[in-house]
Amino acid sequence: MKSICGVAGVTAAGIKEGKYGLALIQASGNSAAVFTQNKARAPVIDLMAERMKKNRLEGIIANSGCANAYTGRRGMEDAIRMAEIGGEALGIDPMNIGVASTGVIGRYLNLDLIEKQAGSLSLSSSEEAEIQAARAIMTTDLVEKHAFLQGESFAVGGIAKGSGMIAPNMATMLGFIYTDAEIAQPDLQPILKRAVSRSFNRTIVDGDVSTNDCVFLTATGEAGAVPLKEFEEGLTAACIHLAKAIARDGEGATKLIEVIVSGARNESDAEKVAKAVVTSPLVKTAVYGQDPNWGRVVAAAGYAGVDFEIPDLSLWIGGGGEKTPLVQKGEITADLAAAKAAMRGDTVIFSIDLDSGDAGATAWGCDLTEKYVEINGKYTT
Amino acid sequence: MKSICGVAGVTAAGIKEGKYGLALIQASGNSAAVFTQNKARAPVIDLMAERMKKNRLEGIIANSGCANAYTGRRGMEDAIRMAEIGGEALGIDPMNIGVASTGVIGRYLNLDLIEKQAGSLSLSSSEEAEIQAARAIMTTDLVEKHAFLQGESFAVGGIAKGSGMIAPNMATMLGFIYTDAEIAQPDLQPILKRAVSRSFNRTIVDGDVSTNDCVFLTATGEAGAVPLKEFEEGLTAACIHLAKAIARDGEGATKLIEVIVSGARNESDAEKVAKAVVTSPLVKTAVYGQDPNWGRVVAAAGYAGVDFEIPDLSLWIGGGGEKTPLVQKGEITADLAAAKAAMRGDTVIFSIDLDSGDAGATAWGCDLTEKYVEINGKYTT
Repeated sequence: MKSICGVAGVTAAGIKEGKYGLALIQASGNSAAVFTQNKARAPVIDLMAERMKKNRLEGIIANSGCANAYTGRRGMEDAIRMAEIGGEALGIDPMNIGVASTGVIGRYLNLDLIEKQAGSLSLSSSEEAEIQAARAIMTTDLVEKHAFLQGESFAVGGIAKGSGMIAPNMATMLGFIYTDAEIAQPDLQPILKRAVSRSFNRTIVDGDVSTNDCVFLTATGEAGAVPLKEFEEGLTAACIHLAKAIARDGEGATKLIEVIVSGARNESDAEKVAKAVVTSPLVKTAVYGQDPNWGRVVAAAGYAGVDFEIPDLSLWIGGGGEKTPLVQKGEITADLAAAKAAMRGDTVIFSIDLDSGDAGATAWGCDLTEKYVEINGKYTT
Repeated sequence: MKSICGVAGVTAAGIKEGKYGLALIQASGNSAAVFTQNKARAPVIDLMAERMKKNRLEGIIANSGCANAYTGRRGMEDAIRMAEIGGEALGIDPMNIGVASTGVIGRYLNLDLIEKQAGSLSLSSSEEAEIQAARAIMTTDLVEKHAFLQGESFAVGGIAKGSGMIAPNMATMLGFIYTDAEIAQPDLQPILKRAVSRSFNRTIVDGDVSTNDCVFLTATGEAGAVPLKEFEEGLTAACIHLAKAIARDGEGATKLIEVIVSGARNESDAEKVAKAVVTSPLVKTAVYGQDPNWGRVVAAAGYAGVDFEIPDLSLWIGGGGEKTPLVQKGEITADLAAAKAAMRGDTVIFSIDLDSGDAGATAWGCDLTEKYVEINGKYTT
């Protein structure tokens, strides 16, 4: 299994017809969710924020092609109806259905299509089923996004979608994550929040914050109780796996960019610097062009709004044993030929040591290419 | 005259040899300056921040092709030497010379070239001279940027450069502005700061904050004392003219984007919303593709971090009598054909009414094109 169907108690199905897809997932258990921080969040997010207060889900219905965002009262009625359609298809109470939508903003849902699609699906726990569900929620995504992690005493599996409108400070995409661990309701939400803050919230494609992002986590409990710390580590690893998949599949992207910041005064400072670098259009275009213009990395660190001394900074390019130093304690040591060579692969890693503390953080992004412009210049027409 | 040489007491000269240009300007008077907020600001900015404490300039030397940024102690020594070269060329005290640099980060100045270029220049107050000075400071700029405004009792003239690494929260470019008005030292700095905050600081090309931005203002006083309010209005108008020229000449840009926000609780809120919209890569690519995907404008307003009610928002596209309503008090009224027609020209204007107060602000940007990626993918190599 690649993802959710590897978790005991989860069945799924999905269909994609042109731009319009529908996924159904069934799994009962204590649940938690995080939502976009955008003021202009979609009615479906308002609905879910309210209904998730009881921290329980028995299933999910998610469509692609239309975000049902900025659709006002009718948008809310349509989201409520979509929960009913999900409930009918799965034979469960609509109040326990998670609803998610992704696609164009400012258009109404085609509920007839959604009802027809939902009626056509039969759920199973096969690998084919999780693949169909992951495909159904794709928009400009080129590849499905799966994560599966088998811990000693529990499993975590998740699917996600996301390629554009990916930005910090929110949940940045759709993600449906399951575990067979038994986790009490009061523990689930803070654990999910921390895991998301260290994974999806550190993934930037274009810096645009979506109106519809949400991550749902359901713990079916079939594997029984597990150590919470171990569970949080496993969940975080699965979220990071999905987050990196989203960054690598960023609209038009040819390379994954990973920025590892160490030596910060605290984790928040480290995160700000890492995100500033992966967000910088100038860093992103330089990575695309394999141009070792490392001054742009330092410049981005400089405007991250974090207190550190520029003369203390060290910067490397490349990962593992192949790290090439560019700046060591403020002294330029750049071997531009080696730096250029380090940019040839499909992953470019910058490591930054601020030398002002012991905290660190990693962020992920992708390069900026002509293809991103092409994809987004003609999205609705 | 197009700009600075229209101001009594100003002479200029400039030379551009391939990537490497040098401008000299002579004008004595009370002066003020604003500098980049980037932590990784260049040594020359540190030098100028110190020397401008006496609020007096008699001349300026500025080079393009090398930013002399992230060059540490040697960078500072080179900046000091550049002031001396300017002082020798103009026959004035190097302590009263403004120095500015723009170009690649992390490389040392070619002082021999700068000295040779400075020695080759002879200053004059001709239109040709101001054009040469404006050209000398260009990097990826395609056009020179001039502003000239003749008030009732005074004139304001300025030149600027800027095309990439243009972002909010700083002075975003090089600008050299002159007036023949007589303005006392204590008044000059706050007036410049406000004018810059309402012009250059609201201009975004790519969201990257430069290491080297600065604006110098010198009041030669030859026109005598003038009403301060009138002067501030004139200076702000000249700065906005230059700011719009920078946005329109953004790297790879085909269109100027103007975002006019009204109905905000305060000017700062209005500015945040306007900047979020002009910064959004998704809005920028939609404008490039002439795709009336207005939902992206609402989404960007939604993540600007400002408190307003989405159902109160109204949005129009187009300027003057040609405004096409897209959203009126939260109701979608978009005529997509008319909206698409409003995107055909070289300027696209979005007007947003938040309906939560009486304050407003305008920001400027440009579209995001494949050309931006091409220019920045191969900048240093």
